[in-house]
Amino acid sequence: MEKINEEKAEGKLGVLCVGLGAVTSTFMTGVLMARKGLAKPVGSMTQYDKIRVGKGADKQYKHYGEIVSLAKLDDIVFGAWDVYPANAYESAINCEVLKEKDIEPVKDELEKIVPMKAAFDHNYAKRLDGDNVKKCKDRWDMTEQLREDIRKFKAENNCNRIVVIWAASTEIYVPVYEPVHGSLAALEQAMKNDDKEHIAPSMCYAYAALAEGAPFIMGAPNTTVDIPAMWEMAEKTKMPIAGKDFKTGQTLVKSGFAPIIGTRCLGLSGWFSTNILGNRDGLVLDEPANFRTKEVSKLSTLESILVPEEQPDLYTDYYHKVRINYYPPRNDNKEGWDNIDIFGWMGYPMQIKINFLCRDSILAAPLLLDLVLLSDLAARAGRYGIQRFLSFFLKSPMHTENEIPVNHLFQQYVMLKNAIREMGGYEADEEID
Amino acid sequence: MEKINEEKAEGKLGVLCVGLGAVTSTFMTGVLMARKGLAKPVGSMTQYDKIRVGKGADKQYKHYGEIVSLAKLDDIVFGAWDVYPANAYESAINCEVLKEKDIEPVKDELEKIVPMKAAFDHNYAKRLDGDNVKKCKDRWDMTEQLREDIRKFKAENNCNRIVVIWAASTEIYVPVYEPVHGSLAALEQAMKNDDKEHIAPSMCYAYAALAEGAPFIMGAPNTTVDIPAMWEMAEKTKMPIAGKDFKTGQTLVKSGFAPIIGTRCLGLSGWFSTNILGNRDGLVLDEPANFRTKEVSKLSTLESILVPEEQPDLYTDYYHKVRINYYPPRNDNKEGWDNIDIFGWMGYPMQIKINFLCRDSILAAPLLLDLVLLSDLAARAGRYGIQRFLSFFLKSPMHTENEIPVNHLFQQYVMLKNAIREMGGYEADEEID
Amino acid sequence: MEKINEEKAEGKLGVLCVGLGAVTSTFMTGVLMARKGLAKPVGSMTQYDKIRVGKGADKQYKHYGEIVSLAKLDDIVFGAWDVYPANAYESAINCEVLKEKDIEPVKDELEKIVPMKAAFDHNYAKRLDGDNVKKCKDRWDMTEQLREDIRKFKAENNCNRIVVIWAASTEIYVPVYEPVHGSLAALEQAMKNDDKEHIAPSMCYAYAALAEGAPFIMGAPNTTVDIPAMWEMAEKTKMPIAGKDFKTGQTLVKSGFAPIIGTRCLGLSGWFSTNILGNRDGLVLDEPANFRTKEVSKLSTLESILVPEEQPDLYTDYYHKVRINYYPPRNDNKEGWDNIDIFGWMGYPMQIKINFLCRDSILAAPLLLDLVLLSDLAARAGRYGIQRFLSFFLKSPMHTENEIPVNHLFQQYVMLKNAIREMGGYEADEEID
Amino acid sequence: MEKINEEKAEGKLGVLCVGLGAVTSTFMTGVLMARKGLAKPVGSMTQYDKIRVGKGADKQYKHYGEIVSLAKLDDIVFGAWDVYPANAYESAINCEVLKEKDIEPVKDELEKIVPMKAAFDHNYAKRLDGDNVKKCKDRWDMTEQLREDIRKFKAENNCNRIVVIWAASTEIYVPVYEPVHGSLAALEQAMKNDDKEHIAPSMCYAYAALAEGAPFIMGAPNTTVDIPAMWEMAEKTKMPIAGKDFKTGQTLVKSGFAPIIGTRCLGLSGWFSTNILGNRDGLVLDEPANFRTKEVSKLSTLESILVPEEQPDLYTDYYHKVRINYYPPRNDNKEGWDNIDIFGWMGYPMQIKINFLCRDSILAAPLLLDLVLLSDLAARAGRYGIQRFLSFFLKSPMHTENEIPVNHLFQQYVMLKNAIREMGGYEADEEID
Repeated sequence: MEKINEEKAEGKLGVLCVGLGAVTSTFMTGVLMARKGLAKPVGSMTQYDKIRVGKGADKQYKHYGEIVSLAKLDDIVFGAWDVYPANAYESAINCEVLKEKDIEPVKDELEKIVPMKAAFDHNYAKRLDGDNVKKCKDRWDMTEQLREDIRKFKAENNCNRIVVIWAASTEIYVPVYEPVHGSLAALEQAMKNDDKEHIAPSMCYAYAALAEGAPFIMGAPNTTVDIPAMWEMAEKTKMPIAGKDFKTGQTLVKSGFAPIIGTRCLGLSGWFSTNILGNRDGLVLDEPANFRTKEVSKLSTLESILVPEEQPDLYTDYYHKVRINYYPPRNDNKEGWDNIDIFGWMGYPMQIKINFLCRDSILAAPLLLDLVLLSDLAARAGRYGIQRFLSFFLKSPMHTENEIPVNHLFQQYVMLKNAIREMGGYEADEEID
Repeated sequence: MEKINEEKAEGKLGVLCVGLGAVTSTFMTGVLMARKGLAKPVGSMTQYDKIRVGKGADKQYKHYGEIVSLAKLDDIVFGAWDVYPANAYESAINCEVLKEKDIEPVKDELEKIVPMKAAFDHNYAKRLDGDNVKKCKDRWDMTEQLREDIRKFKAENNCNRIVVIWAASTEIYVPVYEPVHGSLAALEQAMKNDDKEHIAPSMCYAYAALAEGAPFIMGAPNTTVDIPAMWEMAEKTKMPIAGKDFKTGQTLVKSGFAPIIGTRCLGLSGWFSTNILGNRDGLVLDEPANFRTKEVSKLSTLESILVPEEQPDLYTDYYHKVRINYYPPRNDNKEGWDNIDIFGWMGYPMQIKINFLCRDSILAAPLLLDLVLLSDLAARAGRYGIQRFLSFFLKSPMHTENEIPVNHLFQQYVMLKNAIREMGGYEADEEID
Repeated sequence: MEKINEEKAEGKLGVLCVGLGAVTSTFMTGVLMARKGLAKPVGSMTQYDKIRVGKGADKQYKHYGEIVSLAKLDDIVFGAWDVYPANAYESAINCEVLKEKDIEPVKDELEKIVPMKAAFDHNYAKRLDGDNVKKCKDRWDMTEQLREDIRKFKAENNCNRIVVIWAASTEIYVPVYEPVHGSLAALEQAMKNDDKEHIAPSMCYAYAALAEGAPFIMGAPNTTVDIPAMWEMAEKTKMPIAGKDFKTGQTLVKSGFAPIIGTRCLGLSGWFSTNILGNRDGLVLDEPANFRTKEVSKLSTLESILVPEEQPDLYTDYYHKVRINYYPPRNDNKEGWDNIDIFGWMGYPMQIKINFLCRDSILAAPLLLDLVLLSDLAARAGRYGIQRFLSFFLKSPMHTENEIPVNHLFQQYVMLKNAIREMGGYEADEEID
Repeated sequence: MEKINEEKAEGKLGVLCVGLGAVTSTFMTGVLMARKGLAKPVGSMTQYDKIRVGKGADKQYKHYGEIVSLAKLDDIVFGAWDVYPANAYESAINCEVLKEKDIEPVKDELEKIVPMKAAFDHNYAKRLDGDNVKKCKDRWDMTEQLREDIRKFKAENNCNRIVVIWAASTEIYVPVYEPVHGSLAALEQAMKNDDKEHIAPSMCYAYAALAEGAPFIMGAPNTTVDIPAMWEMAEKTKMPIAGKDFKTGQTLVKSGFAPIIGTRCLGLSGWFSTNILGNRDGLVLDEPANFRTKEVSKLSTLESILVPEEQPDLYTDYYHKVRINYYPPRNDNKEGWDNIDIFGWMGYPMQIKINFLCRDSILAAPLLLDLVLLSDLAARAGRYGIQRFLSFFLKSPMHTENEIPVNHLFQQYVMLKNAIREMGGYEADEEID
């Protein structure tokens, strides 16, 4: 099979992050440290994973970068927007995720990453109150200012390509509203009408990115790119979009553990998940309107893995509940506790409890790296619109109305591998079982 | 592709269990209850799982029995050997795994399953002291008596085929000893010489089964069929062998959870597993010589899933420790506690703790059913010797000296599916990644 | 010291339970079974505990019944009100707390316990919908009907004394409203005015009990007897009142574990408690208005044990959060998970996680027995009003406005012991440290 | 009551630690930092706890130092012996318990604490191999050299008093051997005979300390001062001895949690405790002979708290098992996991699981401070021999043959308070219940 002609990943890749908090500063610090050989980018598929290409006697295992052309860590240039004015060094120190000894060696580079003024609307995140914020006449103006930011950053940093990734807080829940979100024309008109109720700031970022020829990735559970208007925009600009919600912590475990139950044909009667977390993310989610956005994202995970219709004896009417609790004592070190009630032979009950003492930013950082590099790859390979192959990295994978999202971790991995194979000119040779 | 011509599963299938304790009586009770529609055989792949056959547009999902010819539950006839004389009903009541209401409806049938005298050597299980035991002149005589038992059972019950499955205690550790285990001739000679040190009673069962044209499955971690002599015997009699150690509880979780870590390229620094269990199995394993057999079986699981050679940054020198503790208060309800130390981005540590409150016999029973039905299938399909496709059900999958066993739950599942597909005349269309 | 002259516990003691659900039926079944020597009343202080009386060379250890005169189990006669018409046998079977073999031997006695029609107001427990309910003109009429029930029960069963105990659901939160709750006269007037907003049905039960010369115990977190009007009524009738909320499960552990931290002068930065439970109690608490009542009760526990004012370095600003989640798969078997963040030498953090797999009714039943017997004792000993010595059994011990409740389990135990000693004519010889 | 005339704590107090590893360096660093106001000595009773003195209307709450005369932190001078030559600063850095920022401010003082050569015998701790070791002709010479060390340290540092505390590894188990341990004369003779089998190096330290007029505290589970010879020596020199095994981690929780069960008259069927730890202590305990010493110490805890003879229905035949596992990935951060099987009303089972993520040295350091200050106090108050009032701080409290040790945390606390009260001239006014 012939290699699909993605453009080579040449020149600088500008990575513009919305939000310069714990996740983003950990991501940036790690990339800069890895560039100097002072840290390992553990958890990153693009840096570590090997994929089989070919089958049977012809099979070989190769790193992603040996199959397709990926931007190198050395070619990345970072930028950011944030409602707080702290630079990336200050942010990394303040958020207390990394030890000072793991930040200091790249202090100079981090200090130069000063956030641009954010496009912000206090109504979408009531618990935040920074003032490094743009003054905007209306949503259209907000979008225009963001486009100008992108153009300026690209020129000043001599970038060949740009990717924009949202790593900021969860906004309040914005359900799809057809009159505004139903078409690109309607969205643009509503922006001009300054329809603050239906147009979240995140939508301005997404629009701006696509308009400037940059892929856009939604790392929070916001519905930003889950609307037909944005799909139309991606189509029009031939740009990739991906989302939503970085798959860290509890949902990562859930999307990997549920398949164990399903694969062994064990039954499920209930799954209770609770979380305690104390960082800015936790603070924002303590607001019910913002939690709603997250809950919708987290609840869907099980339904497509353990399917009542396929195994009614095993998966009918299981009780699934997800709770998130703001709990400041542990800061960025969030913790999940899951209680899983399964049943086996003759219906006899058993229990599994999983306690995950994790670190939000440490789990999220490699996802940012992979999503950025793979979105850039997709853009060069001419794959635009919704990138299903990135579901592996996301809690609530994007899908069109008629599709069922894939949440099964190992099925998502198959999708990822097949896409890399295809873009590398190999056969997409696995089926999702 | 043409359907491989396995013989149809016609007539009665005699299932002879070595050991009539908690696991066996739970298995038998469940099958008898399921036959009457009074219980569900949850956890059984042959009864529940569906496999994709065909690819792309041609793909279909089918139950195993729709792809290959499997013995029906109605065609099974049970028999057993045990050192204690209790019949299957008494055993089911005594072991307190099932509630009385789940046993009484099949009391009559269970009472008729009276154990034959066991082939037993007290030195191989010091904690057991039953006296329903054969008097044997030597190991060869022990084997001959077992063969006679099998023939008699087959004739009396009008069975078309027999499968023998070991569901008794773990014997003391018997390392491979070339002069006795190295060839079939050597083994037979040593049996005649009554070499009690190198020939465990389980070897007599295995030999007898194969000699009588019955597949043999080792459900404990005994090395019974891990010796060249037995491979030669399986070859000679064209019978399947499978082992070892039913994959229940902690190892099931480990073989499913380790892939989550590996698939996301997270690092591992340590994995500590401890178990408390109080049934007869726990009592036997409290004897260090018997535990040694189990430990060897349980430790190997991680090594082939998280491989240092493939990912030296992630899996070099992780510390893996497994402990089993006899703890009577909970009887058959064993419990595993795992502490997993992983690391992510820039090497930062995180922890996962898994507490599995499980039931040994409830998890094991469906494995017996599947192993019996699939071994019988393999025999009819002319697949003899080591059955790698049954690794899915086993803690320490059998393999020849040059092979590396597959412990990864989802890769084992691929092997299982491919074998079913092949025996059903479809293409074995998945690669292990 | 002279023995205080409590009346002897002679004749029958009528125990009238509000609610005949899981807790009550488990309590009744256990007492009846214990009477026949078929079960042990484990967890009951009056049946098991021994107290030291005397000091130094004179000290002796005696059971409560050897120090004071307690009603015997044989002298108890049970009655109940409930919104559902099921008798005690049916209720015990339905709630699935006890195995049938532990109920059947007292089936006849249980079947005779048929609930009287309940005084009920749907607005106070929206999730309940039984129809075994009194028709009442107003709250005063409701109270009068209850009084008539008590008189009738006492006469028909030839009881010498009566105790009324609330073991029904949590009502919605009723904050103290001075114009109605501030004095007995005001309360009575409001009853006549049928002030449904400020007078919960539970207040009618309490009033009726006291009016009929029976102690009243509040086992749910309802504020029923936390109002001056009720204190005045207890004073007037010279009857004991006690409450509130049976101390089972998580709060029991908390009130015992927090003292470990405090006694060793370790610091606390946070305590997160979550609960999953699936019985009728859980269903009712899933309604936010009812949960509010419970939350107020549960949060107060820590504050009086780990006191910032006394140890500002250790207990300033710890974060305490309590969550209850309705989770049906486990029925009466509730489960608590606590995460405790402590700190030690130089402020270094450590964590404790406690997972309590408990059974609500099994923990509550002995509390009912003890509260009933000890309230009856208090009445005979002439101790009326708030019974602080019963705090040991209660999550949120009653106290007057100026008192600080004692939540420390071992201090509560000192109070209990001192009261028994005093009523037995010994010196109350311990101080609360 | 008149105040007992302890000598005032005037002049310098020399604190000589056997072992300069994680525990000791953490202890020293914390004291030095606290002296500068840069850290809080959290967990220390002498620095934080307040005791009630007086009863009823006269009661007051006072810090220990307000009741008795305690040495001040400023008056402490540190010294140590160790088999490794690293000074206290190097040790604090190497053991990775404290962050650098919590060590650097007292670097100069720590660097001056250079360990004297240790009295060591490789057979007593096979896993250790340091060479900063005394050359000794025999055990008597070993003792003489240690005495010389103490005298020299006292003179050079101008100390008024000395306390010697063992904070080194667990030696192999040395059971009491009457011919050597039965009397002081026998012990001295055996030292001269160089009886290496029965005289552990720790016995030389203890003898030397007492001979030089210094209290001796055994912080490991060694039987050093559990022998009549040492009791005689303490009597003769009028010096306090205390031991054994600092009560940290799992046993702390056990001695506090078991009273919750006992106080509520709940039953116990089993308690399984496992530990993972990776520091030098863990390494040493991985040697079975050394673990034996520890196991004996840890198992005794429950027996005197939940006593079968007193409550046969509740505490007969519970199963108690303790496991310690060397697990290097976590270094000093040890972790305990307890599974507790209790039963309640009518014998119904429930489970509690406690997972304690603790830090060995952080929990031990304040114990060293308290034991040192309180032993010095006892010496000045003329209390010599076994100090039962220090049981609160110890896993396996010393006791003579006829005494039953007190393991109940809150009863130990009563003993501690009473002793302080008495030494401060107040009445010892609490009874152990």
